Amino acid sequence: MVRVGIIGGGQLARMMIPAAITLGFDVRVFADSEDSSASVVKTTVGDYTNLQEVLAFAEGVDVVTFDHEHVPRHVLLGLIDGGVTLNPSPDALALTFDKSVMRQVLSHLGIPQPRWVIVRSDTFTQGAIEAVGGFPCIAKKPIGGYDGKGVRLIASESDIMDWLDEGPVLLEEKVDFVRELSQLSALNPNGDWAGWDVVQTSQVEGVCSEVFAPAPNLDPRMARDSRALARRIAEALGVIGVLAVELFETRDGRLLVNELAMRPHNSGHVYTELSVTSQFEQHLRAVAGYCLGSTEKRAMHGVMVNLFGAVSDEGAQSAYSMYPEIKIHNYQKSPRRGRKAGHIVAVGDDFSQILTECRRAAEIVGVHYYDEGHE
Amino acid sequence: MVRVGIIGGGQLARMMIPAAITLGFDVRVFADSEDSSASVVKTTVGDYTNLQEVLAFAEGVDVVTFDHEHVPRHVLLGLIDGGVTLNPSPDALALTFDKSVMRQVLSHLGIPQPRWVIVRSDTFTQGAIEAVGGFPCIAKKPIGGYDGKGVRLIASESDIMDWLDEGPVLLEEKVDFVRELSQLSALNPNGDWAGWDVVQTSQVEGVCSEVFAPAPNLDPRMARDSRALARRIAEALGVIGVLAVELFETRDGRLLVNELAMRPHNSGHVYTELSVTSQFEQHLRAVAGYCLGSTEKRAMHGVMVNLFGAVSDEGAQSAYSMYPEIKIHNYQKSPRRGRKAGHIVAVGDDFSQILTECRRAAEIVGVHYYDEGHE
Repeated sequence: MVRVGIIGGGQLARMMIPAAITLGFDVRVFADSEDSSASVVKTTVGDYTNLQEVLAFAEGVDVVTFDHEHVPRHVLLGLIDGGVTLNPSPDALALTFDKSVMRQVLSHLGIPQPRWVIVRSDTFTQGAIEAVGGFPCIAKKPIGGYDGKGVRLIASESDIMDWLDEGPVLLEEKVDFVRELSQLSALNPNGDWAGWDVVQTSQVEGVCSEVFAPAPNLDPRMARDSRALARRIAEALGVIGVLAVELFETRDGRLLVNELAMRPHNSGHVYTELSVTSQFEQHLRAVAGYCLGSTEKRAMHGVMVNLFGAVSDEGAQSAYSMYPEIKIHNYQKSPRRGRKAGHIVAVGDDFSQILTECRRAAEIVGVHYYDEGHE
Repeated sequence: MVRVGIIGGGQLARMMIPAAITLGFDVRVFADSEDSSASVVKTTVGDYTNLQEVLAFAEGVDVVTFDHEHVPRHVLLGLIDGGVTLNPSPDALALTFDKSVMRQVLSHLGIPQPRWVIVRSDTFTQGAIEAVGGFPCIAKKPIGGYDGKGVRLIASESDIMDWLDEGPVLLEEKVDFVRELSQLSALNPNGDWAGWDVVQTSQVEGVCSEVFAPAPNLDPRMARDSRALARRIAEALGVIGVLAVELFETRDGRLLVNELAMRPHNSGHVYTELSVTSQFEQHLRAVAGYCLGSTEKRAMHGVMVNLFGAVSDEGAQSAYSMYPEIKIHNYQKSPRRGRKAGHIVAVGDDFSQILTECRRAAEIVGVHYYDEGHE
């Protein structure tokens, strides 16, 4: 029996469990609480910055993987020294742990991306600003950001004085994009690669709110290019498992890499229902060295809408009673305003119909959340 | 959060877990071992014939359901007396606990079924034999049988002398059938009912080996009749949850009820991939009082082939490498000759292609089993 240990107990780890049950894999979770979203299965409570604790967890499994990118490099290297198999590898993960490393490595590979520069308080010069096209531009904390946290649109140096006091900041060109895309794919240790159709994502305040799959009315050349780009990144960096490449489609017809994630990703949730193989199953297969599954679609279109705050049983009930064909995924997280608490997927051959269904269903679930006095 | 307790730790309980994770239900299992197939989640080890143990388990959940029909009636009634919600109800379960009760109740409802008679050693008369059309006929132990166990084709009284010593035996007409069908459906406490397309099943030595969905080339009238029959049984008996009605399609164009199961059933596994809503999700939704999900198909056809003995990682790997579009479900049971260890599903619009894929994949997995010296 293949035993997979997952560092992180969030919804991404949670959603690997159904796939593991089908595959017959033993999955266990290393999380900061016994009440984590993924604590449906055996959970070790610990601190992922503590090498000894992670090593002890890793002893019982064949391969360790991740539901987030925040494990420090010294812990990853310590695991390798301890004989633990890590997928993806520490060298691959270095790019998502620190976004300034990602920019440097992607530049080295010749991957198209926004103009960027790393600044400190003493190097925040007019030249640095001009290198990313002037103000306004994007500032990112290189380490630790997620879901819009650690990202700011800035109009002057003073907008990030607090960050500059802490360390280097990544500045990026404010790209003139028509929309954002995300290319999901997976690579296994044998070199097999499989990609899903590139999707369109919508963000609200830096957080993914909706995904349309495949990206509607996309130039077929760009669809091919985004797959090729993802494959090149995965192969060049040896990213075993699922890789999400977030892209800008620019007004002048280019694809620029915005972010990378080396794990299942919010933008890929739609493929649990839409594709023969979900990103969670594919990730487990890849990190365990299995052959990859088919990424064919089972219907023409899919829509995913995120649910924020909480998913109450009453809200889900009401939405299901109107739309028996949708799927509501409830992460069972404690309610908190703005928190990703679940998502809804609808798939079918009529895009506008499933979009309407998903959005109305999300409204129904949301109304119940606010009715319960969380806002 | 809806909390569902499942009595029984087999593969049916195991396969409810992925659905529970998506729905955000808390499921826990009452099983005879911590190593049961379903012990992926919190498992209480106990004896389902011991009321006190089952009562203690039930304290922590909102509703109790089952992955088998062997819980004695006094335990079920004791749970009801203890204020536990049971779905399906003890009165419904009485029919699957004791097949002679099923025959009597279905006769009372006017449901078409094979001719039957209950005999004891002192009532095993020529008249009894003639009532079921003479020898050869089918003999069934009323209680405790499954997967062909407790069922015999008999040519004389001496073939079941051992059973008659133990108690009454159910004799049934040996039906002249062209094939066996199974109608899966679900009913919730609000009276909502939903059925999947009736499937064709093949048995080898009384054990399901293959399922074709929907039943190929079935007269549309019979497809309607089988749904109507299932609905009538579910509603008349108030069977909350999934109900499987196993049917004979006779040479003279009738449908006769062979067996009932009030839980997810081997013949419904194909709908995990083929339908919008799996039987496991539907069962949980129904027993928890949720609205039912859509039973629409996502492709034209589905094939399921059971895997016996064991599913090795190597066998699954080999099969996956040839057929990336199939799904192999590994129940993680300890290897034993003849034991249901998993199943394979393929879905698509070309029936003969998916049938070939499934059968070849099953052969590949089987070869690995026998290579490992289990035979």
